[in-house]
Amino acid sequence: MPQDLIFTNHVSEAIDRTVSRLGNQPAFVITDTNTASLALPLIAGRCKALATAKTFSLPAGDANKGLDSLSGIWRWLSASGATRSSIVINLGGGMITDIGGFAAATFKRGLRFINVPTTLLGAVDAAVGGKTGINFSGLKNEVGAFAPADAVIISTMFFSSLPPTEVKSGYAEMIKHGLLDGKKALADLLKFDISDPMADPDALLALLEKSVGVKARIVAADPKETGLRKALNLGHTVGHAFESFAMTEMKSPIPHGYAVAWGMVVELILSHMMLRFPAETLHTVAAYVKRTYGYFDIDCDDYPRLIEIMGHDKKNTSPDKINFTLLRSPGQPVTDLTASTDDIRAALDIYRDLLA
Amino acid sequence: MPQDLIFTNHVSEAIDRTVSRLGNQPAFVITDTNTASLALPLIAGRCKALATAKTFSLPAGDANKGLDSLSGIWRWLSASGATRSSIVINLGGGMITDIGGFAAATFKRGLRFINVPTTLLGAVDAAVGGKTGINFSGLKNEVGAFAPADAVIISTMFFSSLPPTEVKSGYAEMIKHGLLDGKKALADLLKFDISDPMADPDALLALLEKSVGVKARIVAADPKETGLRKALNLGHTVGHAFESFAMTEMKSPIPHGYAVAWGMVVELILSHMMLRFPAETLHTVAAYVKRTYGYFDIDCDDYPRLIEIMGHDKKNTSPDKINFTLLRSPGQPVTDLTASTDDIRAALDIYRDLLA
Repeated sequence: MPQDLIFTNHVSEAIDRTVSRLGNQPAFVITDTNTASLALPLIAGRCKALATAKTFSLPAGDANKGLDSLSGIWRWLSASGATRSSIVINLGGGMITDIGGFAAATFKRGLRFINVPTTLLGAVDAAVGGKTGINFSGLKNEVGAFAPADAVIISTMFFSSLPPTEVKSGYAEMIKHGLLDGKKALADLLKFDISDPMADPDALLALLEKSVGVKARIVAADPKETGLRKALNLGHTVGHAFESFAMTEMKSPIPHGYAVAWGMVVELILSHMMLRFPAETLHTVAAYVKRTYGYFDIDCDDYPRLIEIMGHDKKNTSPDKINFTLLRSPGQPVTDLTASTDDIRAALDIYRDLLA
Repeated sequence: MPQDLIFTNHVSEAIDRTVSRLGNQPAFVITDTNTASLALPLIAGRCKALATAKTFSLPAGDANKGLDSLSGIWRWLSASGATRSSIVINLGGGMITDIGGFAAATFKRGLRFINVPTTLLGAVDAAVGGKTGINFSGLKNEVGAFAPADAVIISTMFFSSLPPTEVKSGYAEMIKHGLLDGKKALADLLKFDISDPMADPDALLALLEKSVGVKARIVAADPKETGLRKALNLGHTVGHAFESFAMTEMKSPIPHGYAVAWGMVVELILSHMMLRFPAETLHTVAAYVKRTYGYFDIDCDDYPRLIEIMGHDKKNTSPDKINFTLLRSPGQPVTDLTASTDDIRAALDIYRDLLA
């Protein structure tokens, strides 16, 4: 089912048009406490659908994307009289579109829902493509469903209130899409000054539209991740390992996009080693990542634990085979590659040389 | 996605063939305590897939089809090392195929699963057609997903250990399918002696295959219940109300299929009143129901509460409009009809005259 992707800075009007297209049924807004205070006031006044909607606020943060929050949403929908024809509006970052989408997809076996991402990372990644879910048993997105939103309304209007770290985090996923798209798209992204994103919101919205388009095309070709969609995992095998390692071993979480940026550098090194990805492009991306995201500090004593974490990734069919998506060149991904631990160690060595 | 429906009394072999078709991945069996002791031993010895499978047993009974059991299954799958390519086998009645199907459909965003119904009601109804779910917040199937099993293996071999009440309960759904199919199918069903079902298990399997075929055709035409699938609700608006009423007001639950049988009589009366359903067929079905299921005793003081419960049915878009599926004649369902409370009262009066 293709999603209706709407790029606009007139979000209130877009919500009303979408609710009207879906039959003007009552709307139920799922949001978090941050978004309720910072983003909702920007659109609530001019939006008819929001004026009569009931609202449920979760405490902000990925730690609240669990079963208790999920059953809280279900209970609220049930008590508030949501029917099968009701419309859920998920207003927030990836945490809200993930859990709100899953709650909508499963309440009464599925309500229609609209995603309104309020973060760059949410807009370019979580809100689009139909992956919904919750963290469970200490594992990210361990439970969920493939359930595309009926519409995703994407704008830059909420980004002014985001911390720069959050914006840069989202931009890493855009660079990933650029790498999957081709040389030109990548060059355009590396030219844009993400340290001052709102200097030119229209240019950012145009880049965003192009970037989301890359993901949407890949997802349309393979909604359930049996083949091509795995290309979107570029940077994520190593990135997730960095993220888990920072959380569990260093007790100091790092932003998802930063982890992906560093992970992409490692995986482009592997791409160079295994698929002759061009050295020049590798160095350009590595320099951009160093300048924008700095360096995630690891030494060779950390390698065994990092490699162990990579082995536990959900995308692996068995823990001793570590799957990667790598690139021959920008625009030419190869999925389902297995790297040896020696290759992974060598790539981590080079990553430290390039970025430290 | 069409389901692979396998009618056989060689269940072990059918499971092995199906697991082999799905790539011979490790199997995880979800069952209940009754089935684990009565049904599993009948097939475990000769089944390769079951020999190496891990098994999770829920306490039997619909009261255990809730969030705690669901999270227990998720936790077990996670701890037992289930991956995205693992295969879940749901072995049990409707309670197990509902909750096990929902757990499989949502664990890591969806594992493949096989339903092996062990009750007649499960075989003819819950196991086929992709509706999965749990009870939540005091409401039946309030949370769930449309997720078809990869295969449903249907046999009569488990029915010998079922109490006669359970078999008759399932047979009511078969009569419903007969009413939706046509005169001939209905007549064949009313001829079969369900009080001694295992006297001719092959004849029962043949009737079952025909009956499941009716449901499968309807579901294939409308998997998400936006139109034609509502035909399957025949008997259920009143049937569910009888069921809830017995549970909450009389504190004495009645079997689902019995409720559906009585509900069908009321709804055939409404069909006669509103759509000229033939009186002769109505009387034939009513006599069969009286003989096989007896009478659910209500009086006119109960009508307001019964009608109130009908208004809360999930299929209604608002509580003051009560939706019915009715019949012009066997084989000619009409969905989305609204009956007035006067008509419903009149139909309940006639029901009492016919069956008391």
